[in-house]
Amino acid sequence: MASLAVHSKKHKVCIVGSGNWGTTIAKVVAENTQQHADIFESEVQMWVFQEQVHIPKDNRHYKSASDQPQNLTEIINSVHENVKYLPDIPLPHNIVANPDLVAAVKDATILVFNLPHQFIAKICQQLQGHIVPHARGISCIKGLAVSDEGCELFSERIGHELGIYCGALSGANIATEVAQEKFSETTVAYAPPEMDSRHPTPSGTPLPDAKGEEIDMKILSDGVQAGKKKLTPLPADYPPLHHGNMKKLFHRPYFHVYLVNDVAGVSLGGALKNIVALAAGFVSGLGWGDNAKAAVMRVGIMEEVKFGKMFFGSSVKTETFTEQSCGVADLITSCSGGRNFRCARMAVEEGKAIGVIEERELNGQSLQGTSTAYEVNSFLRKEGKEKEFPLFTAVYEILEGRHRPEEIPDLLNAGG
Amino acid sequence: MASLAVHSKKHKVCIVGSGNWGTTIAKVVAENTQQHADIFESEVQMWVFQEQVHIPKDNRHYKSASDQPQNLTEIINSVHENVKYLPDIPLPHNIVANPDLVAAVKDATILVFNLPHQFIAKICQQLQGHIVPHARGISCIKGLAVSDEGCELFSERIGHELGIYCGALSGANIATEVAQEKFSETTVAYAPPEMDSRHPTPSGTPLPDAKGEEIDMKILSDGVQAGKKKLTPLPADYPPLHHGNMKKLFHRPYFHVYLVNDVAGVSLGGALKNIVALAAGFVSGLGWGDNAKAAVMRVGIMEEVKFGKMFFGSSVKTETFTEQSCGVADLITSCSGGRNFRCARMAVEEGKAIGVIEERELNGQSLQGTSTAYEVNSFLRKEGKEKEFPLFTAVYEILEGRHRPEEIPDLLNAGG
Ligand SMILES: NC(=O)c1ccc[n+]([C@@H]2O[C@H](COP(=O)([O-])OP(=O)(O)OC[C@H]3O[C@@H](n4cnc5c(N)ncnc54)[C@H](O)[C@@H]3O)[C@@H](O)[C@H]2O)c1
Ligand SMILES: NC(=O)c1ccc[n+]([C@@H]2O[C@H](COP(=O)([O-])OP(=O)(O)OC[C@H]3O[C@@H](n4cnc5c(N)ncnc54)[C@H](O)[C@@H]3O)[C@@H](O)[C@H]2O)c1
Repeated sequence: MASLAVHSKKHKVCIVGSGNWGTTIAKVVAENTQQHADIFESEVQMWVFQEQVHIPKDNRHYKSASDQPQNLTEIINSVHENVKYLPDIPLPHNIVANPDLVAAVKDATILVFNLPHQFIAKICQQLQGHIVPHARGISCIKGLAVSDEGCELFSERIGHELGIYCGALSGANIATEVAQEKFSETTVAYAPPEMDSRHPTPSGTPLPDAKGEEIDMKILSDGVQAGKKKLTPLPADYPPLHHGNMKKLFHRPYFHVYLVNDVAGVSLGGALKNIVALAAGFVSGLGWGDNAKAAVMRVGIMEEVKFGKMFFGSSVKTETFTEQSCGVADLITSCSGGRNFRCARMAVEEGKAIGVIEERELNGQSLQGTSTAYEVNSFLRKEGKEKEFPLFTAVYEILEGRHRPEEIPDLLNAGG
Repeated sequence: MASLAVHSKKHKVCIVGSGNWGTTIAKVVAENTQQHADIFESEVQMWVFQEQVHIPKDNRHYKSASDQPQNLTEIINSVHENVKYLPDIPLPHNIVANPDLVAAVKDATILVFNLPHQFIAKICQQLQGHIVPHARGISCIKGLAVSDEGCELFSERIGHELGIYCGALSGANIATEVAQEKFSETTVAYAPPEMDSRHPTPSGTPLPDAKGEEIDMKILSDGVQAGKKKLTPLPADYPPLHHGNMKKLFHRPYFHVYLVNDVAGVSLGGALKNIVALAAGFVSGLGWGDNAKAAVMRVGIMEEVKFGKMFFGSSVKTETFTEQSCGVADLITSCSGGRNFRCARMAVEEGKAIGVIEERELNGQSLQGTSTAYEVNSFLRKEGKEKEFPLFTAVYEILEGRHRPEEIPDLLNAGG
């Protein structure tokens, strides 16, 4: 599997974003670029949205912290800790925090996008014309842009805006736990058309053998393929970015990485699970026990699969949802203690609307599950497919007050 | 899907066993035989291991209960409640409790086996020569008979002993919750060779088209097929027992049934999950959070699949484990509050051997997970396949004190 060829260039990695998850992934990646010096430049640039930050009084690095706020980038680069977004986690010294986006991505061949989705558009705009043409992206952003016009993956959007291939990373991961090196797994979807022309994937999955070929940067829900762009091939003096090398970038002893080709499947699990978690919360709130909850989760996974195959085409694989961390494991975690699950359960237990619970429990933040449930429903209705997704539809109807959680079994029965 | 042919005979059902789960399944089945009077005789015989039972003082049926113990069968038949094994659940009046095994199975074309596995051998011996030759079986017994010689499913053993086809029912089901009509799902595996020669399965899965053909009653782990028996075809004057009609026998509004062909897969999930639940308990005990637990569960499902395919042949399907109630859902339930999970977690939290916890928590009962882990390990070792099941092997090694739960990520990493 190891490449025997010697490559004159190495990959340079930039992490675009430096919040809770962005800083964690920067730590993971920076540990790996040190370890695999034959493939990657050790230094990892991390673009930081600049902020003035007060150093916490009890910070171990600053026995006598000044009262003056300092630039977050300077703090990170001097004490090797993101005191605001990932406190108490020592960062590898080869992470370089950079407040200048264009400077941070300079010469980077691997761009890891890790920031709240509302900033994607602006960031992509700023990046246009400033990235190397053969750069490759990985989106760590959970969620889905659903509107009546269609569903768009954030990886698709990034790839489309920048004219690069963009894969996805998603799994049952809570940033702080990964940062503390508690064990978890994740799934990375990466399959640009060029990949297989140079090296077979270790996973053995055949990929289209085409270098610089036209690829679909965006597959619209109606099956129309839009936004075809010519992908710039990775020059031969770089180590290939096959699954084996992508694994070397993300896999750690405490963070096990599995590579797949199904970008849409990996992205969808992390978005649709929030609807399922609401349903699981509803039946738990009824006191129906663990079996009812497990049943709802099982049905939920199967609706995720159906949604993926119906609206993202044949590249979506059932097993991405049923066998991977980004699917079943992420759903299990969300239905254990996630906020969508907990708020839905409380709503039923207390006989209150979920909005009331949301306000009380989340001080100002809102549940992802409810907005996703509404967006997905509106999209499904437009497509005339509501009936084929009885669980997603039931959640929406319950949120709307048109059905009660007690009716879930009958609603599923009618659908199946 | 409904058969247009009129059949002069109906199926007669006998439930062999009447404990907590047996009585619950009798209730489910008896509700359905009333509802589908075109296919099934309404009366459902339930064989009861006779016991003298004191009626509880507060039983609603006996305002002035005598102090004399009575026959359990007589109580069931007069008050329509199994006061010993399923108290406070009213049973349909078409259930007839029968202490005489041979009389109970007389003329029954469908035998539902539902009793603790240690009684199977004796029961099968007593049944030999007393069942109708074209009877069909369904085993509701969880577990697996593993020895160094091989793994045997209880459905296989029953089929083999009686010379009949025996399918399996398994899912994320706690008897009392199903009896209380709380929502759950289950999986029924049923695919005798004759099935498809008369009617297509609603699930659309092609089945061998052969009536009275030789079938493998038992597939030994080494791939040698043994115990071939001539299966007596179901006479044409009975309604066919295709998936649609089997669903009618078990499906209720509160108990959703999915039919598959994979008997081994359905049976294995319910047995192997107990090993996985121990592993999930170990990492939870370390305080590693929900992601670590979900990761271990995901790996566990994949080892269940591998075990099935390796030792039970190509009829075992991945999706039985990853998409069905008997697989993923049953595992989720077991890793939520099941005793294997809880005891393993306590053992790690308190730094004690699991045997100590077992004794303290289960007053005299023993954990299924530990014995299954030992049996499966001994079998795998004999087959030289320990390394291919790193999670199952890790659980065994931890039970033996040769590894610590902290090492699970490394043990999995080495394996994968
Ligand atoms: N946190 C987790 O546990 C976790 C786990 C898996 C996936 N994710 C995903 O990772 C992504 C990032 O999540 P997070 O938890 O790191 O977010 P966060 O809330 O911790 O990060 C906020 C980030 O946004 C930046 N920011 C603030 N204002 C900005 C502006 N105007 N323009 C650009 N950037 C600005 C901040 O500097 C900070 O880096 C999300 O899509 C999330 O779904 C998070
Ligand atoms: N209880 C559950 O929630 C549940 C759920 C799913 C599957 N199962 C499976 O169902 C099967 C039955 O479990 P259960 O919980 O009903 O058991 P149980 O402990 O409630 O039943 C004990 C039964 O054994 C009978 N019995 C006692 N001594 C006997 C003897 N000498 N010979 C024959 N029978 C004798 C009793 O009459 C009683 O019917 C098991 O294989 C179990 O794995 C149980």
